[in-house]
Amino acid sequence: MTVDNSYGMTYARHLDDVDNLRGFRQKFLVEDPELIYVDGNSLGRLPRATRELIRGVVEHQWGERLIRSWNEGWFELPERVGAKLSKLIGAQEDEVIMADSTSVNLFKLALAALRFQSGRTKIITDDLNFPSDLYILQSVVELAGAACQLVVVPSQDGIHGDISGLKLAVDDKTALLTLSHTAFKSGYTYDMVAVTELAHRAGALMLWDTSHSVGAMPIDLGQSAVDMAIGCSYKYLNGGPGAPAFLYVRRDLQDQIGNPISGWMGQKNPFDFDLTYQPTTGLRRFLSGTPPILSLAASEIGIDMLLEAGVDNIRAKSIQQSEYFIKMWENNLSHLDFILKSPRDPSRRGSHVTLGHPEGWRINRALIEDKKVIPDFRRPDNIRLGFAPLYNSFADVYEVSESLLEVVEKGLYEKYLEELPEVT
Amino acid sequence: MTVDNSYGMTYARHLDDVDNLRGFRQKFLVEDPELIYVDGNSLGRLPRATRELIRGVVEHQWGERLIRSWNEGWFELPERVGAKLSKLIGAQEDEVIMADSTSVNLFKLALAALRFQSGRTKIITDDLNFPSDLYILQSVVELAGAACQLVVVPSQDGIHGDISGLKLAVDDKTALLTLSHTAFKSGYTYDMVAVTELAHRAGALMLWDTSHSVGAMPIDLGQSAVDMAIGCSYKYLNGGPGAPAFLYVRRDLQDQIGNPISGWMGQKNPFDFDLTYQPTTGLRRFLSGTPPILSLAASEIGIDMLLEAGVDNIRAKSIQQSEYFIKMWENNLSHLDFILKSPRDPSRRGSHVTLGHPEGWRINRALIEDKKVIPDFRRPDNIRLGFAPLYNSFADVYEVSESLLEVVEKGLYEKYLEELPEVT
Repeated sequence: MTVDNSYGMTYARHLDDVDNLRGFRQKFLVEDPELIYVDGNSLGRLPRATRELIRGVVEHQWGERLIRSWNEGWFELPERVGAKLSKLIGAQEDEVIMADSTSVNLFKLALAALRFQSGRTKIITDDLNFPSDLYILQSVVELAGAACQLVVVPSQDGIHGDISGLKLAVDDKTALLTLSHTAFKSGYTYDMVAVTELAHRAGALMLWDTSHSVGAMPIDLGQSAVDMAIGCSYKYLNGGPGAPAFLYVRRDLQDQIGNPISGWMGQKNPFDFDLTYQPTTGLRRFLSGTPPILSLAASEIGIDMLLEAGVDNIRAKSIQQSEYFIKMWENNLSHLDFILKSPRDPSRRGSHVTLGHPEGWRINRALIEDKKVIPDFRRPDNIRLGFAPLYNSFADVYEVSESLLEVVEKGLYEKYLEELPEVT
Repeated sequence: MTVDNSYGMTYARHLDDVDNLRGFRQKFLVEDPELIYVDGNSLGRLPRATRELIRGVVEHQWGERLIRSWNEGWFELPERVGAKLSKLIGAQEDEVIMADSTSVNLFKLALAALRFQSGRTKIITDDLNFPSDLYILQSVVELAGAACQLVVVPSQDGIHGDISGLKLAVDDKTALLTLSHTAFKSGYTYDMVAVTELAHRAGALMLWDTSHSVGAMPIDLGQSAVDMAIGCSYKYLNGGPGAPAFLYVRRDLQDQIGNPISGWMGQKNPFDFDLTYQPTTGLRRFLSGTPPILSLAASEIGIDMLLEAGVDNIRAKSIQQSEYFIKMWENNLSHLDFILKSPRDPSRRGSHVTLGHPEGWRINRALIEDKKVIPDFRRPDNIRLGFAPLYNSFADVYEVSESLLEVVEKGLYEKYLEELPEVT
């Protein structure tokens, strides 16, 4: 077969040479330089500086300062890290706070939205949304009463969102439209301005789950007039496994809605130990219990690095990488039953590209075991390749494509079990 | 004045010499040996082994193994640590799981209890309960519908629980009785068997918040036929700041109640990515979002140490320490306006002792600044002294008492501001 060599390793190396972000890779722990990690959209790499920071939090802040550390920074940590994160998503500093998990934050905000405007009983979402978000929304509408319902609008084709379908679904009974900004499977990215406007035209609130966008592309929640947003910090933000999530509520809405999980961290004067809950002003009322300090502290370094790199630079490189990969797919992989399951238009695509293949599961295994390439598999047949511009090189992109080619051409996948193991 | 010297430092040193737990202190990082830390009931000390463990979790599990660590232990971590913890509280291994914060867990279980038996619309608690628990319960009854209500039974005297009062309040409309097993302020400890039985006699479920008991005294949830329990791991369990909490549900109840925060970690086959929530069997359904792995991992060492020490030994030393302190109070402090605000009966008292004093706030400041003693202050006038048998010596107890005496006799507190600062 013929391989188009104009997109070969020489080309990749050239792109790496002129890459203005190339210096960032060395800021991460890369213990095995031969490992090609394209799963930063699931768990970002460890920044070297995070190692030192965590050592200090454990040994100095906890070990030596003990309880005093609560007054020496821990209490303000959810707001302080949130304020930094706000700069990545076009929010004001007091509009973002770190709290709980993405699921718990969605629960709090979606329930608050449903209770905000009486007479509005529907939550609208789509089937591209992360299943975990759907699970939470199912519970939220059930809790909110028999009259409430969740409407899941089908996507166009499992890949692209259907804005016309959403427009039809959002009506004057809709309390909330909530979507993943970038879909976890296909990587489809909604037009945030247009969709938010669509919700507002019907008088509904708009909540974006930015988990698969934040740190990978510019987001402007303020400019887009977004009401609420959530997102996780362990993907492109490199905050570490299960690092606390964040939530955003636009400033003028903050004091109008309540947190259903009304814990002591959101209490007006928590150390007065009043027996009656009285929420503090601002976003802090959306805190619930005591935050996990080690995991929360770890989330700061990755945000600093993204701010230093500049999210426009990240996005430019991300598009260049995914376009490069898709070009390789067109030239070398598309005739081998690999199907592009991400949008072709880069402006509608996040930083990961998904390929479908009838032997997807076994190919994924072979990539990991035989080629030292770590992608992510999503049933039934999706190989998800996440390009994290801070540490993935263009050579990585080339190697991923070549590895896919070799695994199929040489039949390296054939030795693995055909059956997908039962996951429980 | 006369000080009773039979309880002096010589006596304390003797008790330390014959203490069968004395070897445990060296397993903690004690950077400043002169600091007397009696706030382990708020934030436990750092076990030395936790430093090494966290380094491994960060550098090896996250840094090197990356996403693979989810299949190499992270997914099972909430259950694995929970199974260890179960041995401290008389539960079966599959009855305890680590999850979220104490507040979020209370929210989940209290709401589940309220939805469990139709026609039962009340939650009963008392005013000794941690205010944070009351805040959550207020929200839970509000969410559960207009017919639901929270009844807060007054304590006898702000120190002791009123079991007769609870008995009167719990009726055939009661869904749940929930109390702090050991009260955060006075340290009063309820008779778990008797109170649980009281709830059951009325057909209500019983939920204990064990935050101020767990790791400080034997708890037998199974023997006491308790339905649900929650607790935190950063106090006597030494799990680190904001370490994830735990929840217990007795086995036969687990599949009968639902988690209102129905996240992907509790889904039957989470990697099937079904669009409809279907809870898995057992306690895992009470997980919601992705757990904060660094903080969760840190919680294991302290539990191991308590299991090694034996919770009966811990309790024996704890009682010996608080009895010793109270004897010192009687002899040397009671005539200086220090009031005992904890139960006098050790069987009804946790591992902390609270003294009230009109100058409590300033005395507390002087203890910290002038005497290197770190207690905890609880408005309006409570100095809370938590004795953690794993690392507090009898000499510590003696020094605390002597420091209180000196601060008052020498007027060391007078230089501090009389006004309590406004805490927000």
